[in-house]
Parts: sequence; C-alpha cells; structure tokens
Amino acid sequence: MSLGRILLGRRLRTSESDDQLIGPWIGVPVLGLDALASAAYGPEAMLTVMMPLGAGAVHYGVPLALSIAAVLTVVFLSYRQTIAAYPNGGGAYSVAKENLGERAALFAAAALAVDYVLNVAVAIAAGVGALVSIFPALLPHTLSVCLVLLGLLTLLNLRGVRAAGLVFATPTWLFVVCLLGVLTCGVVKLVLSDGQPAPVVALPPLSAAVQLATPWLLLHAFASGCTAMTGVEAVSNAVPIFRPDTVKNARRTLTMIVVILLCLLLLEATLARAYHIGATTPGEPGFQSLLSQLVAAVVGRGFLYNLTLGSVVAVLCMSANTSFADFPRICRILAQDKWLPETFVHRGRRLAFSHGILVLSALSGILLIVFGGITDALIPLFAIGAFLAFTMSQAGMVVHGWRRRHERRARQRMALNVLGAVATGATTLVILVAKLHEGAWVSLLIIALMLLGFVGTRRHYSFVARVTSTSASLELGPARPPLAVVPLRRWDAVALKAIRLALQLAPDVICVQVLTGDRSVDDLRPRWDLLVTRPAKQGKFKPPELVVLSSEYRSLFKPLLDYIDELARTHPDRQVAVIVPDLVERRWYHAFLHNHSAALIKALLLARGGPQTVVVSAPWYLRDWLPEQQHLARPAE
Amino acid sequence: MSLGRILLGRRLRTSESDDQLIGPWIGVPVLGLDALASAAYGPEAMLTVMMPLGAGAVHYGVPLALSIAAVLTVVFLSYRQTIAAYPNGGGAYSVAKENLGERAALFAAAALAVDYVLNVAVAIAAGVGALVSIFPALLPHTLSVCLVLLGLLTLLNLRGVRAAGLVFATPTWLFVVCLLGVLTCGVVKLVLSDGQPAPVVALPPLSAAVQLATPWLLLHAFASGCTAMTGVEAVSNAVPIFRPDTVKNARRTLTMIVVILLCLLLLEATLARAYHIGATTPGEPGFQSLLSQLVAAVVGRGFLYNLTLGSVVAVLCMSANTSFADFPRICRILAQDKWLPETFVHRGRRLAFSHGILVLSALSGILLIVFGGITDALIPLFAIGAFLAFTMSQAGMVVHGWRRRHERRARQRMALNVLGAVATGATTLVILVAKLHEGAWVSLLIIALMLLGFVGTRRHYSFVARVTSTSASLELGPARPPLAVVPLRRWDAVALKAIRLALQLAPDVICVQVLTGDRSVDDLRPRWDLLVTRPAKQGKFKPPELVVLSSEYRSLFKPLLDYIDELARTHPDRQVAVIVPDLVERRWYHAFLHNHSAALIKALLLARGGPQTVVVSAPWYLRDWLPEQQHLARPAE
Repeated sequence: MSLGRILLGRRLRTSESDDQLIGPWIGVPVLGLDALASAAYGPEAMLTVMMPLGAGAVHYGVPLALSIAAVLTVVFLSYRQTIAAYPNGGGAYSVAKENLGERAALFAAAALAVDYVLNVAVAIAAGVGALVSIFPALLPHTLSVCLVLLGLLTLLNLRGVRAAGLVFATPTWLFVVCLLGVLTCGVVKLVLSDGQPAPVVALPPLSAAVQLATPWLLLHAFASGCTAMTGVEAVSNAVPIFRPDTVKNARRTLTMIVVILLCLLLLEATLARAYHIGATTPGEPGFQSLLSQLVAAVVGRGFLYNLTLGSVVAVLCMSANTSFADFPRICRILAQDKWLPETFVHRGRRLAFSHGILVLSALSGILLIVFGGITDALIPLFAIGAFLAFTMSQAGMVVHGWRRRHERRARQRMALNVLGAVATGATTLVILVAKLHEGAWVSLLIIALMLLGFVGTRRHYSFVARVTSTSASLELGPARPPLAVVPLRRWDAVALKAIRLALQLAPDVICVQVLTGDRSVDDLRPRWDLLVTRPAKQGKFKPPELVVLSSEYRSLFKPLLDYIDELARTHPDRQVAVIVPDLVERRWYHAFLHNHSAALIKALLLARGGPQTVVVSAPWYLRDWLPEQQHLARPAE
Repeated sequence: MSLGRILLGRRLRTSESDDQLIGPWIGVPVLGLDALASAAYGPEAMLTVMMPLGAGAVHYGVPLALSIAAVLTVVFLSYRQTIAAYPNGGGAYSVAKENLGERAALFAAAALAVDYVLNVAVAIAAGVGALVSIFPALLPHTLSVCLVLLGLLTLLNLRGVRAAGLVFATPTWLFVVCLLGVLTCGVVKLVLSDGQPAPVVALPPLSAAVQLATPWLLLHAFASGCTAMTGVEAVSNAVPIFRPDTVKNARRTLTMIVVILLCLLLLEATLARAYHIGATTPGEPGFQSLLSQLVAAVVGRGFLYNLTLGSVVAVLCMSANTSFADFPRICRILAQDKWLPETFVHRGRRLAFSHGILVLSALSGILLIVFGGITDALIPLFAIGAFLAFTMSQAGMVVHGWRRRHERRARQRMALNVLGAVATGATTLVILVAKLHEGAWVSLLIIALMLLGFVGTRRHYSFVARVTSTSASLELGPARPPLAVVPLRRWDAVALKAIRLALQLAPDVICVQVLTGDRSVDDLRPRWDLLVTRPAKQGKFKPPELVVLSSEYRSLFKPLLDYIDELARTHPDRQVAVIVPDLVERRWYHAFLHNHSAALIKALLLARGGPQTVVVSAPWYLRDWLPEQQHLARPAE
C-alpha cells in the first residue's frame, strides 16, 4: 500500500463527486468554524480596546454588541440572497463580476484570498496559544505545534471536504451545545437573581478608569468587535459543496451559523455586563480570557468549565478549516477565468482542489514560521480583506437588485442590500481608519500586488493562446527528412542503441564525439570504419559520419551545442534531431554516481535550441540487468 | 560580464595547465599552512593536558617537544622518499596501493579524507575563535563569520591553486618571519641573562599542582602535542602541482615547512620552560594563549606583539587551505581508480578539481553549522586520520624499500622507514588509546562507512561497465520502423508541430488524447477527419490515427502510459517513439504559469518505459514570439 494511499485514502473517480457533497450538519463544521470561533475572540477584542475605561466599559458592551449584531444580520440576509442568485459559488467575486465589472471582482477575490491566508495563520496561532496556556510545557514548541496542526489540517482537507467535516463535526457541535448551554444557564441565574447574580468563582476586579469614553475609542472598539463577523461569507463562496437541493442546504447552513453566532454574541455581552466582566491584559500574570471568566462565573471551575473551555480551544484550533474549504474554490474560480494558472482548476485524488490547499498551506506556513508561531502582529491586517469583500458583495447585490427591480418583492430586497452596502462600507471605513497605522496598509499593498499578478497571468495566457491557437488543419509541405545527430562519449551498448535508433529515424546520421583531454576516453576515428561504416553498408543504410571535436576548455557541451547550431544554420530546411544516449539508473541513489550528461544535454538543447531542434532520448535501462539476470542473454532492444 | 567570470576569473584552456604550476615559495602557503598553524596549537594542546601538574609541567615540556620533533623528523625523511618514489602524488594512498594492497590504500585514503574535512571545520572555527577573542563584537556572529570564511576559501580555491597561493603568501611569510624573529630574540635574551630571563610583561602565575606526573598523563600530553604534525603529508599528496623539476620543488617545499615547524616547536618549548609559562584554562577569565604569553614575555605588548599575534590569527584562519589543496586530489585519484564518481576527475573552469572543492566545502560547512561554529567536540576526532595515514604510508615504504633492497643505500632508507613505521604506529596507538573514549571511535566508524561507500561505488561502476561495454560493431537486423505516439491535449500550433515531426520520423503515427472531464478541452474526434486525415492523405502520408482515452481518476498520465505499455506489448518488434509537444517558455518565471505536463510525461516515460520506448521532445519556442515580432509572420519551423 503506497504512502499516498495510507495518508489520503483511495483515489476517487470523477463520477464519485456526488458522494462528497454535504448537508447542513456537516456544513456548519466545514464552513462555520471561522464564524463560530469569532464568538471566542470578537467580544474579547472589543473589550480589550475598552480597557482604559476600566469599570466604565461595562455600560458600552451591550450597545456595541447590538450594533455589531445589526450589521451581522444585514450581511446575513444579503448573503442569503447571494446564495440563491449565484448557486455556483464564488461569493463576492461572482457578484462583483456580474454587477460591478471584472476589476471590482478581482479586487474582492484578492481581498478574500489575503484574508483566508491570514486567517489560517492567525487561527492556528490563536488555537495553539490557547492550548499552550493549558499545557505550559508546550510553550518552547509553539511553532512546531502550529506546523503540526497546519499539516494535519492540510492532510484532512486533501482527503476531501467530507472527510474533514466528519472529523470536525463532534467538537463543533459540542462547542455549540456547551457554550450555549452555559450562557443560557447564566441568563436564567441573572433573571432569578433580579439582575444581580453572584459569580460562583471570584472574578478579577476591573481596573480603575484612566480615560473617559470618546466616540473614537468606541468606534475602535466596534471595529475590533467586527472581527466576529469574518467567516459569514464562507458559505456563499462554496455553495456547490452542498448536496441538492443545493441552495436550500446552503441557506440553511448559513442560517444555523449566524443564529448561533448572534446568540453567543448577545449572551456574552449581556452576561459580561451583569457580572461586571472586562478584558484582562494578555501576556501578563492574572490574564483570563473573557469566555473563561464568563463560564467560571456561571458554573464555577468544575467539569463543565473544563469541557466548555476545552471545546473552545478545539474550535479555535480547527477554525482555520473554513479557509481550507474556501480558498481553493476562489483560486479555482479565478483559474477558470484565466487569472490564475490552470492547475488550480484540477481536482486531486480525493476530488479536493489539491493545489489550492497546498498553496494555502505553504503561504500560511511561511507566515507562521516568519512570525515564530505568534501572529499578534498580523491581527490588524486581518478582517480588512473580509470587510472589503463584504462591501463589494453588498454593492454588487444592489446593482443586481436594480436590474431585477420589476420582479416581485424586488424593492424590499434592494432596500436591504442598500442598507447592507452602507453598513458594511461604513464598517470597512471604520476598520481601515482605526487600523491603518497598525499595519492594515500592508493588506492593501498585498491586495494591489495580487491584482498585478492576476492581470499579468491572464495577459500571459492570452498571449500564449493567441500565438499557439489555430484552427488550421495540418499543412504538410514538401519537407525534407530530418538530420540525426548522436552525441557519443565512448563506444558502448548505450551508444550502439542510440545509433541504431538514429538510423531508423533519419536517413542522414552524424555522430559527434567531444574529446576533453580525458585519457580514459578513446578517439573513435581509428575504429569507426570497422565498428560502424562497414556494418551500415551491409545493412543498406547510409553510413553515419563521425565528427570529433576537441574541447580546449574541457566542456562536453559547448562544442556540441555550437556544432548543432552550425548544422541548423547550414541546413535551414531540415529538422535536427539530437539523439541522446541515456543510461537510466536502477536505483535512485545511483543518480549520485553518474554525471547526468544526458539530462544536461537535453535541458541545454531545449533551452538553447531553435525551432529546428528536436531532442530524442534513447534510454538504455540498467534495471533490465538485475543481478539475478546477469547470466541471461541481453534483453531485446 | 557573467557572474562566474567576475567571481572565478576567465576560463582557462587545458593547454594553460603549466601556468598553474607553483614553486616552493607559493608551495609553502598552499600546502604548509596546516603544518605551520600547528605550531600555534600543538604545544598549547600538550601543555593543556599537563595543567594538573601545575608548575611541575615545565620540566616535561622540553623532553616531550624533543620526542615529537624526533617523530616528526622521521616522518619527514620518510615522506621525502615518498615524494621521489611517487611523483604522481596521492601520498599514503599511492604508497599503500603499490605495497600493501588496495584495501590498505583505501583505508589510508578514507582516513586522510576524514581528516581533511575535520581539518577545514576545526581550522576555520579555531581561526574565527581567535578573531572573536580580538573583536568580541563578532561573538554573536561566530557561525556567520565561519561560513563567510569558508565561502572565501572555496571561491579562492575554485580560482585555481596558484591564485589561492598568491593570496596566502604574504600573511604566511609574515607569520614565519615575525614568530621566528620574536622567538629567536627570546633565545638571545635567555642566553644573555644566564638562563633567568625577566619577562617584559608579568605572566599569569602557574597554578599549584593537583597531581603528580604519571606515565599515562605524559603519554596523553604527547598524543595531544602530536596534532602539531598533521599537515606534513600534504606535499606528498599533491606533488603534481609543482613545476619542473617537480620532485625537487616538492621536496624543497616539504623541507622548508618541516624545518620552520621544528624551529618553532623547539623554540616555543625552550622559552616556555625558561619563562615558566604554562597553559591557562580556555573559556575562563584570564585565558591567554601560549603564543600570546610567549610573545608578550619576550617583546612586551607593543606593535610587534600585535603584528605577530595578528599574523598567527591570519594563518589559523587560512590553515584550512591545505585541505582544499589536498582533498580534491585524493578524490581525483580515488575517482581515477573508480572508487568515487568520475566527476571528481574533471577539472573546472580554472583547472582546479572543482567538484572535490565543492564537496569538501559542503561537508565542512555542514559540520560548522551542526556544531554552531564551535568545533571543540571535533578536536578528539582530529589527527587520528592523519596518523593512520602516516602509519600506512611508512609501512608501505618499508615494503617498497624491501623490494628495492639491492639498490644503493637501500639499507639506510629501509632502516629509516622501519623506524618511521614503528614510531608512527606507536604514536597512532597512543592517540587511539588516549582519545578513544573522547570520540575518536567516531572517526573509525566514518572511515569504515567510507570504505563501504568506495567498494559499493566501484562495484556499481564495474557492473555498468560490464553490461554496457562492448567491442562489437554495429548490428543492424531487419528492424521494423518505429511507431510514433503523439500525446495531444488540444489542437494548437504546438500539437501541429509535433504531428508534422511524427510523420517525418515514423510511417505509423497514433495521436492520443486523454480527456479528464475538464470542460475547457474539446474532444478532437469530430474534427479529426477535416484537421488531419484529409491533409495527410493529400500529402501522401499515412493518416495519423486518433485514440481518445477517458481518465476516470482525472490523471493525464496514467491512461497514456498504460496505452503506451500496451502498444509496446502488442508490437514487440518495434520501437515506440513518444513525441511530446513541449511549449518552451520565454522567461523562467513563466514556468510557474504552466503545469509542466511535457516535463512530467518525459520523466515518467523514461522512468516507467521499457527498452522499446523512445522519448522525443518537439519543442515549440514561445521566445520566438517576442512582443515586437507579433506583427511578423510566424517563424519557419
């Protein structure tokens, strides 16, 4: 059984595609982990920005959470329409392409692609960070753990969407049930205690205020909290992974994800206010994540606490998976439109878009390595891409709606889309302004470079297509037969085979021997008549000519290449077929023992040759001479 | 001007070999640096072993130095004979091969090769260590400095032996003049002061004795001091680099090296005793090298001190060069005898044995990186190889003398060789016993593995030679013409060229199209008659057949390879020439934009094919379509 088989499972036939389709219960783990994991870090990021307000922060948490929930709801309703309107997936790219033009579509695709790469690095680093805070012994190995996790995610996704979803389903739903259960329990306690619940475990006190609330600080907090919304676009990008009725299943999945996310956000905000919980400073002693404080306050630090927080860590670790589901599909759609190399269109052995998965894995692996597995520096770059794509998508849907304004209920839909475009556009602006100096400009720069890359790629493809494409039928002029050239080093069975082949392929054969002054190589001229000329004449072939070149700089290749160039010049109406004797080794490590003249000659001929040159490998197989066969006759050639 | 030209200088003709030959004044820097640098660390190593004796050590320094000098003299006289007897170089290998048999010779060669690799790593680390103690700011960059130095040495040696020697000549002779001058000055002071000289600068006091001298300790000190002798074999390995009269020049070089080394060793020992100088603990505060103490005692810490110690550091840094001169020559001699790949025989653009230089550089670079530029752990491994080779060489010379025992003065020579064999054999044993537990067994293990490698390599070469070599003349049976197979993806100019070529090379052409379910590729069957069959008939060619294969696992290659296998099976008497349409890119970075099907097909065909398969590249050059030419007619093909 091959290694590929063990790691990736058996190859799937193209006709087995339908078996890989999924429904909502697997759809939520595959496409919703990014959004759901946001519930763990979005509200926390918001409260962290408000830390200078001290205890005063508690008054602003709920209103901010409500405004985020409002934007989220608008975006959700809009994406529900997008799914129905663009059932082939591609989300923002498809919407923008049809309604706003190619450039806008490319911009949206580049923004999403950057966001997905960042998401993988940030999500894995966050998951491993949470893991390390539970098992401090792992701390020196942070980067290794990150890379192992990245490798596992890559492998799972190469096994196909369905395989990944099945693995992630249990922890995802455990997370949803536990966290929703604990938070609901907290609300029950809140109601029973007339709004003054006593925490089961003492909470870290809120620090004293060092600043009053300013509109700018609140906007910044809102922008940070909006990271909770990334991942909502995931379903619209990957609609075709659902089984029929595809649109219905995709919409149902999106609804499940957003409803759960809304519940979690609002419950967290409410309870944080009721228990007077704020953020603590990460990296300092006494740091406790918001969820840890909330869960401990509601149910104490028992089994339920461990189970819930464990599932949170598991979801954080796996939340990079959404990118693995979406990024390859965006690459595929771009490749179908020739903005990216064709290879992203092809499906691998398990029907996943393997090249996109591997590229995503490589790029985010590089980010993890460069930042040593601690990606705090990347967080400001994050979410810009997603919100740019949201805005493009909403704006596109407005145009989409305008074009269909005479359909039934078109007005309501359009009103929603306009609201969505304004809301996401405004949010994008807030995020941009709040985070530009923290490094968000890097995201914009990368997006711009990607656009250049897309355009350059397509220009190259269309150039190649223009010069190679032809609908002409085969033209066969009165071409003269090719000239064959056989480079020889010494007289052996490999050379013999090449000469025999040359005589079969072309009427005129020239053998070229380059002498470099190495005494172990004999000049073939004295024996040529006996070895070649006479047998050729007997066999009714035109005898091959021998040309001996001496190389004063000891290079085997230059004199040969110069000779072939000259030959092509003096015979402009003939192809020059260079027949390279090629000893093929028995074992891979034998490659170290030979000097690869054949491979080098072939590469140089292809690189330097002109349209007249043709390179022919005449392989001679050493493996046909296994030790146990040495007593046998030589194999037929 | 190309990068190679700038870094390495112009290519040299083989006929310019003589200009690269050197005389003794360059010979000492090229081949003597290893031996001369030993004067800096050999006596120090000896005194370090004797540190537990405290002030008592001063009594043993001179007798031990005298015994080392005696062994050195014997080895020197013996190698003088070796140079005359084996003017083609190869030192211990050549002597052992002729007199003790192949296995002994290989053993000696492996021992020397290991020693040379270790020498490069240890010498560079020692030189950089000395440099860092002068410029402590370099300390965090120790490894980088080591690697830069290694790179410089590699580059210099790739430029040719003579170029390297010219660069090293000035510091080498400066070192010799300064150090000999200062030490002689010290002896004069010693005589003038009636054996009680007063040091110019106060010296660190010798510590109290913690142990009495035991024979074992003295043997260990002797063994450590013997590291001063490594490098004496260098000249005998590289005799052919001298200009005529070659033997005389080589012997003169060896004599100069050994006389200088003997003077330095004995002067150091004498002065160390007179000034009561002992070793200090390396790495502890107050550490001062033996030479630094000696020079400061004689001339104080003025300009002369700085100049002398500076030249010592320079020589330490450059002393790895001896290995660069010798290792490639040992590899070459082994390669000539087929124990190593043939590539080590060839000379590079500057007539140096470039492959040997690069392999040495790579191996010692790996050692430096693995040990972080601090190679103390390697020092016990060092010198074993050299002494094993010394012993083999001396023993070989005994047999050599015995065979010539009837010549004039043969008795005296043989007596010297027997003495040499006994002395070096005994010294080797002492070193082995003294250092075995410190890691010298690693050297032995590596030598054993190298022996296995040599034997395996030669076995492979002789197998290849046996199955490929033939003195038979060309046999041309009544072979049937080849079958041509053209793999097609789509109908374009690249494919058209391949089909035209196929029709010229073979009477029967089969075009194979593999459909993977990709909708952008059209099935060619409906248009085949129009595109190919009719024009072929008009051109009086047999029309190519079209075979369309569908690939249920989406692989382009497997169905094609299976089809070709099947074709070869059903036509056992014909060659199958696979003509691969190959789009050659204009720019290297375009390679990222195409999926290399052609390169993959060719590689798979060579790897999987049988003796019937022939692989033909039909290149189609995109670079002939530069933008400014697009309005022109298509180039003739």
